[in-house]
Amino acid sequence: MDTLKLRRIAIDTYRENVAFLHRDCPHYRSEGFQALNKVEILAGQNAMPVLAVLNVVDDGAIVGPDELGLSEQAFAQIRLPEGARVTVCQAQPPASLSSVHRKIRGERLEEAEYVAIARDIVNNRYSKIEMSAFIVACAQVGLEREEVLYLTRAMVDSGERLDWGAGLVADKHCIGGVPGNRTTLIVMPIVAAHGLLIPKTSSRAITSPAGTADTMEVLARVDLSPDQLHEIVHRERGCLAWGGTARLAPADDVLIAVERPLSLDSPGQMVASILAKKVAAGATHLLIDIPVGPTAKVRHHQDALRLRKLFEFVGDSLGLHLEVVLTNGSQPIGRGIGPVLEARDVLAVLNNDPQAPADLRDKSLLLAGQILEFDPEVRGGAGRALARDLLESGRAAAKFRAIIAAQGANPDPPPLGSLRHEVPAPVDGIVTAIDNFQIARIARLAGAPMDQGAGVELHRKLGDPVRQGETLYAIYARFPADYRFARALAGQDTGYAIAAPLNSPGHGGDWRLPVRGLGMPH
Amino acid sequence: MDTLKLRRIAIDTYRENVAFLHRDCPHYRSEGFQALNKVEILAGQNAMPVLAVLNVVDDGAIVGPDELGLSEQAFAQIRLPEGARVTVCQAQPPASLSSVHRKIRGERLEEAEYVAIARDIVNNRYSKIEMSAFIVACAQVGLEREEVLYLTRAMVDSGERLDWGAGLVADKHCIGGVPGNRTTLIVMPIVAAHGLLIPKTSSRAITSPAGTADTMEVLARVDLSPDQLHEIVHRERGCLAWGGTARLAPADDVLIAVERPLSLDSPGQMVASILAKKVAAGATHLLIDIPVGPTAKVRHHQDALRLRKLFEFVGDSLGLHLEVVLTNGSQPIGRGIGPVLEARDVLAVLNNDPQAPADLRDKSLLLAGQILEFDPEVRGGAGRALARDLLESGRAAAKFRAIIAAQGANPDPPPLGSLRHEVPAPVDGIVTAIDNFQIARIARLAGAPMDQGAGVELHRKLGDPVRQGETLYAIYARFPADYRFARALAGQDTGYAIAAPLNSPGHGGDWRLPVRGLGMPH
Repeated sequence: MDTLKLRRIAIDTYRENVAFLHRDCPHYRSEGFQALNKVEILAGQNAMPVLAVLNVVDDGAIVGPDELGLSEQAFAQIRLPEGARVTVCQAQPPASLSSVHRKIRGERLEEAEYVAIARDIVNNRYSKIEMSAFIVACAQVGLEREEVLYLTRAMVDSGERLDWGAGLVADKHCIGGVPGNRTTLIVMPIVAAHGLLIPKTSSRAITSPAGTADTMEVLARVDLSPDQLHEIVHRERGCLAWGGTARLAPADDVLIAVERPLSLDSPGQMVASILAKKVAAGATHLLIDIPVGPTAKVRHHQDALRLRKLFEFVGDSLGLHLEVVLTNGSQPIGRGIGPVLEARDVLAVLNNDPQAPADLRDKSLLLAGQILEFDPEVRGGAGRALARDLLESGRAAAKFRAIIAAQGANPDPPPLGSLRHEVPAPVDGIVTAIDNFQIARIARLAGAPMDQGAGVELHRKLGDPVRQGETLYAIYARFPADYRFARALAGQDTGYAIAAPLNSPGHGGDWRLPVRGLGMPH
Repeated sequence: MDTLKLRRIAIDTYRENVAFLHRDCPHYRSEGFQALNKVEILAGQNAMPVLAVLNVVDDGAIVGPDELGLSEQAFAQIRLPEGARVTVCQAQPPASLSSVHRKIRGERLEEAEYVAIARDIVNNRYSKIEMSAFIVACAQVGLEREEVLYLTRAMVDSGERLDWGAGLVADKHCIGGVPGNRTTLIVMPIVAAHGLLIPKTSSRAITSPAGTADTMEVLARVDLSPDQLHEIVHRERGCLAWGGTARLAPADDVLIAVERPLSLDSPGQMVASILAKKVAAGATHLLIDIPVGPTAKVRHHQDALRLRKLFEFVGDSLGLHLEVVLTNGSQPIGRGIGPVLEARDVLAVLNNDPQAPADLRDKSLLLAGQILEFDPEVRGGAGRALARDLLESGRAAAKFRAIIAAQGANPDPPPLGSLRHEVPAPVDGIVTAIDNFQIARIARLAGAPMDQGAGVELHRKLGDPVRQGETLYAIYARFPADYRFARALAGQDTGYAIAAPLNSPGHGGDWRLPVRGLGMPH
């Protein structure tokens, strides 16, 4: 068969390999390729075959009739220079796709099938369409808990596994959905100050206004090499790095790239995704935080209990020491939402500032106390007092400063956004609801997390009295367009519900309990 | 907000709009776009907003930092010249996606929800990932029969509807899966010769070695304008055109573009897809052919009956006169597989050639007879004899010649492929099974339908005796690479099972009933 000249096409198709063939390419005609078909690109003995979805090009400047173009990630995989000779043929569907079809038919899959699926996904043999099919099939029928275990193990085995050389490696994870919930930055130094190993690799924000890594980045570098990471953890017992560079459970990363635009996060996939990442990151003891509230990811206590049992089953089967706490997810935690604003809250708590948000402090002490009790030396029930002592004595703050210095303090911390808008209360009353989603959306539109200084600063929380015209929250932004969008969204719906206080029946104002659809999380 | 310069990117992303932004585009940074996000492109009052999935580009030659690139289909939709100023922002997920989430949760959707989904799909508001989610969700829980009706109506309403100005417009459709099954080219002229209106718009092959339109194209033009189509049907009572140009149930076309690479064809979606296309094409009387056999799409009589009832329910609800026949799908029909070979079989039957394949002739007469009985003037049970008379008298052949002339006879019919390979029987015996899939795969690898002269010519059919070394079938190809691939596949598995005749127990040869996985259709 005739060969084609390899060409790199500088298009980032995000975790899906795309191949570009000119419409006049003789292979396109003779092979009967169709757009969206998958093709296999071969380049002799030494090169990995690469699979890609086909796009057809009519512009010889992008790819010529004698060329085969590959998008950036596909080009990186083939490990050949531009101009190398390659052949292209129809790809067979990945063998494990028959298991996906079985799952679609409602059948239970075996562990070997999940292993094969994870392997094919990591090797880029699945198109986005096929991944979407797998995710929806799992979400719809649901996974039996053994299947969740199989999927978790398969995802762990799809990548590398960190080894910290210690018998007790603590970690924590919140399933998310509550803005401002930056407890990790307080819990980690408390636990490390006690002496437990707590090497945190956290994500950047995906759909939220700030991830833990985004907030830490306000203060220090987070993109550390594996060597740096180990050195810092060895010395300081803790760290807070971005987990994106290590190949931990990479099959999970690929699936998330499809789950996110689908807004699909079924219990089985959530548990598998979280536990796979933690096991791959070397955790032996893990605390899971499940916020429950009307606008949290989990809305009903019942659902939270079911999710906890699933975490416990899979965690136990993997040999993890796992504890689950259900927390109050009825409103944002702390005051700030957005990297700079959240970092400010974190520092206030660690510095024992009397103005520090009490809810962030209390929740952090609760979680830190639970983790400290993983230490066999700590008496059951004594964790929280120990955590408070580590915080109030300033040891946690000192530890945090040491870790920041070790990771590389940010010499030029970003300022708050210069555009500021205060959202006023439309009526007198009591704050009866704060919509986590709406507040998060407003903060994102304002520019968070890309603009670190953008976000929302809450002036009123649940149960607070407020008078008409007083500020509910302030929006910070840097770019006028973002500022305008965020203000407009807050203008449509502040995210707050305000009701007259029960003891003021004579109140004659224009108050009412706003009827706002709280909407589905997704 | 700043505007970007519109640029057409000559990449065919096949039914998914793709937008290209340079990584250094200020909008990409400030809006916090992520690859795979959907963006909305706006260009003032007069232009339709267009939704597209975002790809990020690092090559200024493809798209510059001040430009917004659109793939071909997206560019066509925006109806603006290159260089026009556009703005881009994050797109909200299509509103109907919440119905897809409900379907994923296993709920039953209302008619209005299917209408909204079909509308959003036609308006390119769904990404491939989202369409895949919809398709899998429907396939997995299954659609209640009312839901199939809703989906069918929604798809009909998503496009245009042909009106032939007649009270009886006949049509036929085979659900597919049996190679060589070109009855339409025989049934259509028989029915038209009788005087019933039968305007056939057929598809080209999608996954098969030849579609009806591919085979007709060997003999005549099939890409007719709507005006030509009406003129020919008015004069000749029949035609055989490619249905791809009319906007008939376009939501279905978009969904099929995702179903095909997924190899997913659930009963509900199949029925909705077929009936939507037929109703949109103006049919009032419809015959559905369901071949049943171990390697057909439908393998079990039970499943065929269930499918028939679903067709009947939806057809009746739509006011269609609909009949379903279950036919023998245990092997390919006729002798040839591939456009030229199948056209040869069709002409042999129409010309009453004594060598014409009897099974193709018999099945065509059965189907034509059923359609003729849609005519109130034809007595119940008299259709088949009438069809035979129309065939044997030469009136059907004359009608076919007239229609070919009207559509524009192909002045230069393609020859058979010049490369020919005979696949021999490995042992003496009786043909006990022919795998439709394997034979179709071999014909496709040989080049069909793109190479019209490529394909497979069967020399032995079920029940035929054969001696070792005698030809089971011949492969025709044009390109050496295709020829090699097809031969190699036939070498791995001929697709034939041969067993010793029962009355020759003393046969000492190396015979056995080959254990071949017949595999899933998909």
